[in-house]
Amino acid sequence: MPPGPPHEERHFAASATVRDLVIGTADGLTVPFALAAALSGAVAANPLIVTAGLAEIAAGCVAMGLGGYLAARTDADHYQAERRREEEESRLYPEREKWEVAAILHRYGVRGEVLRQAVEAIASDRRRWVDFMMRFELELVEPDPHRAARSAATIGGAYVVGGLIPLSPYILMAETGPALAVSCAFTAVALAGFGWLKARATGLPPLRGALQTLGIGGAAAAVAFLVASAFGG
Amino acid sequence: MPPGPPHEERHFAASATVRDLVIGTADGLTVPFALAAALSGAVAANPLIVTAGLAEIAAGCVAMGLGGYLAARTDADHYQAERRREEEESRLYPEREKWEVAAILHRYGVRGEVLRQAVEAIASDRRRWVDFMMRFELELVEPDPHRAARSAATIGGAYVVGGLIPLSPYILMAETGPALAVSCAFTAVALAGFGWLKARATGLPPLRGALQTLGIGGAAAAVAFLVASAFGG
Repeated sequence: MPPGPPHEERHFAASATVRDLVIGTADGLTVPFALAAALSGAVAANPLIVTAGLAEIAAGCVAMGLGGYLAARTDADHYQAERRREEEESRLYPEREKWEVAAILHRYGVRGEVLRQAVEAIASDRRRWVDFMMRFELELVEPDPHRAARSAATIGGAYVVGGLIPLSPYILMAETGPALAVSCAFTAVALAGFGWLKARATGLPPLRGALQTLGIGGAAAAVAFLVASAFGG
Repeated sequence: MPPGPPHEERHFAASATVRDLVIGTADGLTVPFALAAALSGAVAANPLIVTAGLAEIAAGCVAMGLGGYLAARTDADHYQAERRREEEESRLYPEREKWEVAAILHRYGVRGEVLRQAVEAIASDRRRWVDFMMRFELELVEPDPHRAARSAATIGGAYVVGGLIPLSPYILMAETGPALAVSCAFTAVALAGFGWLKARATGLPPLRGALQTLGIGGAAAAVAFLVASAFGG
């Protein structure tokens, strides 16, 4: 390999697990916090806020977890179906499929005899030929078969952990006002810290990341509070 | 082009807008329905269920909409940053970058003199060269600059529309029991219809799609109901 920068440090690609954690935690922190804050304005009793909050966390955990599971399963099914189709087409319409390989390479400047020979080299092995079409024509990457269940558990678990942070003051304290204040403080710290870490992991400015997640949480709570005040009681 | 099946009918790729609609509607139908059902078991009064439900819809709409906006913005920033990096590297380490192009084509069976000439053809135009690396090394597709705002509006709007379906009986009816029954019926029809349409759009079996979304909604409501019964009151 010719000299160059170390390959590992060059590009960041968020792993699927990090993405799942981010999705689950962000929504888990934001929505239960906003719901509890809105209900603090509309009703007085902490036990009811806790009931609504826990019900929301349970519903969100199952909906997002199962949703993530089915999305990952659908991706895997879709990949297999398209792969079978490409394999069949490479048998039924080999000239058409070779033409498509040529069209892709042509777009990047390969021409003439070199193009013809490169296409023949790729099409000389059916597995590689279909691999090429899957990646470069359809832009589909083979999904990890174990991903569906892991994705469900990660998103659902992150949602529960995230949701219990804003709800814990309502569980532990008797009065709604102080519980709301502590919940705001806990959630603000958690959102800012989470945004900071997420930005660092994806190579973006950490302060901007912290302010963005804080902004989303604040905006969601403010809108929920206004809606609950306008329609409630 | 050699003869083959009509290209348009061959492969389905969900447009970004369809994906946004699916994400917003699925969560919007499921979570407010489950929350309202759980609160129906724990508390008696419809006005409070409506307040909590509307607050949840508002919070979920803002959290998912803004979350979608920032995710799309982050994708666009990430693409531009990686593109600048690839351009710089093609200047600083041209041999390394050519080696990487060769490694990709080699994986698909291109060898020897044809490989060398194909790499030179791709590297002869810096724009195409960087395009090739972005697509085939980093697997990044240039994001649509207008997508962020549209994505936010689509996800948020779909969440509100989805959420108002299970909540409408509680708004329009006085008694909790009948409202819960009507809400179950409305939501079941909406979830099954939505799953059916989603499966048809993605080319999967429609009946399985309908049963899956129905299952997610039912499971989320059941778990939320159990949690609210266990901890509430």
